[in-house]
Amino acid sequence: MTAPVQNVRVRLAERSYDIQIGAGNLTGFGRFFTDRVQASHAIVLTDENVHKLHALRVAESLGQQDLETDVIVVAPGESSKSVEVAAGLWDGLLQLGADRKTAVVAVGGGVIGDLAGFVAATFARGLRFFQAPTSLLAQVDSSVGGKVGIDLPEAKNMVGAFWQPQGVLIDAETLTTLPDNEYRAGLAEVVKYGVILDAEFFDFLEANVAAIHQRDHDTLIRMVARCCRLKADVVEQDEREETGLRAILNFGHTYGHAIEMLSWRKEKNKSHARSSDLGSLLHGEAVSIGMVLASRLAERLGRVDSHFTERLRSILQSLGLPTDVPEFDRKTILDAMKHDKKTAYGKLRFVLPSRMGHVELIGDVDSKHIAAVLDQ
Amino acid sequence: MTAPVQNVRVRLAERSYDIQIGAGNLTGFGRFFTDRVQASHAIVLTDENVHKLHALRVAESLGQQDLETDVIVVAPGESSKSVEVAAGLWDGLLQLGADRKTAVVAVGGGVIGDLAGFVAATFARGLRFFQAPTSLLAQVDSSVGGKVGIDLPEAKNMVGAFWQPQGVLIDAETLTTLPDNEYRAGLAEVVKYGVILDAEFFDFLEANVAAIHQRDHDTLIRMVARCCRLKADVVEQDEREETGLRAILNFGHTYGHAIEMLSWRKEKNKSHARSSDLGSLLHGEAVSIGMVLASRLAERLGRVDSHFTERLRSILQSLGLPTDVPEFDRKTILDAMKHDKKTAYGKLRFVLPSRMGHVELIGDVDSKHIAAVLDQ
Repeated sequence: MTAPVQNVRVRLAERSYDIQIGAGNLTGFGRFFTDRVQASHAIVLTDENVHKLHALRVAESLGQQDLETDVIVVAPGESSKSVEVAAGLWDGLLQLGADRKTAVVAVGGGVIGDLAGFVAATFARGLRFFQAPTSLLAQVDSSVGGKVGIDLPEAKNMVGAFWQPQGVLIDAETLTTLPDNEYRAGLAEVVKYGVILDAEFFDFLEANVAAIHQRDHDTLIRMVARCCRLKADVVEQDEREETGLRAILNFGHTYGHAIEMLSWRKEKNKSHARSSDLGSLLHGEAVSIGMVLASRLAERLGRVDSHFTERLRSILQSLGLPTDVPEFDRKTILDAMKHDKKTAYGKLRFVLPSRMGHVELIGDVDSKHIAAVLDQ
Repeated sequence: MTAPVQNVRVRLAERSYDIQIGAGNLTGFGRFFTDRVQASHAIVLTDENVHKLHALRVAESLGQQDLETDVIVVAPGESSKSVEVAAGLWDGLLQLGADRKTAVVAVGGGVIGDLAGFVAATFARGLRFFQAPTSLLAQVDSSVGGKVGIDLPEAKNMVGAFWQPQGVLIDAETLTTLPDNEYRAGLAEVVKYGVILDAEFFDFLEANVAAIHQRDHDTLIRMVARCCRLKADVVEQDEREETGLRAILNFGHTYGHAIEMLSWRKEKNKSHARSSDLGSLLHGEAVSIGMVLASRLAERLGRVDSHFTERLRSILQSLGLPTDVPEFDRKTILDAMKHDKKTAYGKLRFVLPSRMGHVELIGDVDSKHIAAVLDQ
């Protein structure tokens, strides 16, 4: 029996679309698709990890709707978000006879969604596009909002577009097969939504830690649907990142992004440096640490009390996420923050809480406070 | 003294913008730019042919507005509309520190406009974009309408976007340096606008053949401005090629495109085939022949009389354009038409005149008529 389905409607200026969240609903993808577009041809894009686990079911379901269905499988991992892979996919779509009657379906995590969305946005000046995100991070974050793109060798997500899907179908069952560390990393972004936008949702997470650990379907559906609704609220008000509102989604990312980058650098040098005892951090793990640091910074500025930070640290820990700053040189972290490409004109800006469910964008923070929280 | 400036306003659902047409106005580009966008940085993209002739003046004019200005020069010709060149430009923009405060300025013909527009549409999910088209074809056709893109090895314009500029500045003086064959090829599209949309404009062209040959600035300004207005009218009603209206712009292209392709194929084999006495045709030259053929087809279907075709043939000839079908095998031409990628689902559709200034989209034309006009 499938669990009750929730629906999140994303209302944009030009066009609205649905995010359907259920459990076991991936086999209904074909119908979800034909209910929303008139197309004769679907091209499923996935990676080697997700191919047999989930993508074949999506393709089969599309085939049952009498759609000509092709599947393209790329290598898993961030390295597939490259110009070279995109060029290969453009050629692949041409070989498969793709035209404006074709729709592209992304089945996989954030890398697949970003890559497939970019190829769809640019082939024949834009093909219609669906998402079936299968990682928690993709379900609650990257599949909502229409940002698609690829990386340049020296800059992530530097080439891309805003390209909204015709629909997003989320099957919570796909989270059952997700590796623990990836599941946990996604939970960091889930906690983030509570802190920045929804105190009640934060309460819900605290009350459901056990069910979240068990990946209970009903709990997952409620949790994912709430995150999609919260992100959609932000995106609806700032679709193309013009008003600055979308920036609140970066809570924990100023510290987090710097720590993430440094952890990767360290990992890269691992073979040369014996002392390394820390693996590279997943994005969500770094964001978890970054959120605690941002909360401490808010404390120092008198915006929240120590109980606030403790509550945040506590739920992150109980969800298995790291909250302590890795043993990097403090100056190195601060330098990395200052040189982050996302830093507007070299000025550090922080998304800081003032109470649960509410954050503000704060510039001009005294650098001694920024440094001090790293040693608390 | 500069000639009187004309302005064509393109009104689109999301945003409107101006096409300014003058003579000698390229040196005012900087002001045109700062009147329309707040930006700190401009990147001029041009090719080796246009660089010193025109692009440096645009860059200088931007610099006079206290804008940080960079110039990127690519090789001339269709081969620059490739994934590889686009990838090099993305990297180049990154090296030049491009961000959302940067605007891209295309100075050149259709290749430069398409390429620069595509790079602008996709870098950092979209940079603002200006056009200063310097070929007649780009001024009356490719710079109006927002279509940008690059080629795949096996399909022209297969990757791209709809990306409207913030403004287009046309300097008729740039046509003075345009090679004769390119100027004439642009005139074919000019004549096309008269046939499909504006009988009065066709009269104007007939009355001004000498001035057009002399590239008289006032005549050019009036001519180019009228073409921009006519194309803008079509684009405003069918911005993303959804209603089918934009298809009327393909008058002469069903025959023309096939003949163009075959002429290139013949040119390619020239070193092996002694008998070839015909060079490859420019797009506009092939469209000229295609328009006469389409007119003959309309005659056969009783839509226009022989005087109509003769009038069309006569002005094309007086403008130095070819009107006779090259010595290709008839069956080869017909096959090429059937396999044209632009043919919807294998069915040939023709844009056919019913009177001067009016065309209709006609399907189901008897194939014996389609073949017969080739031998008239």
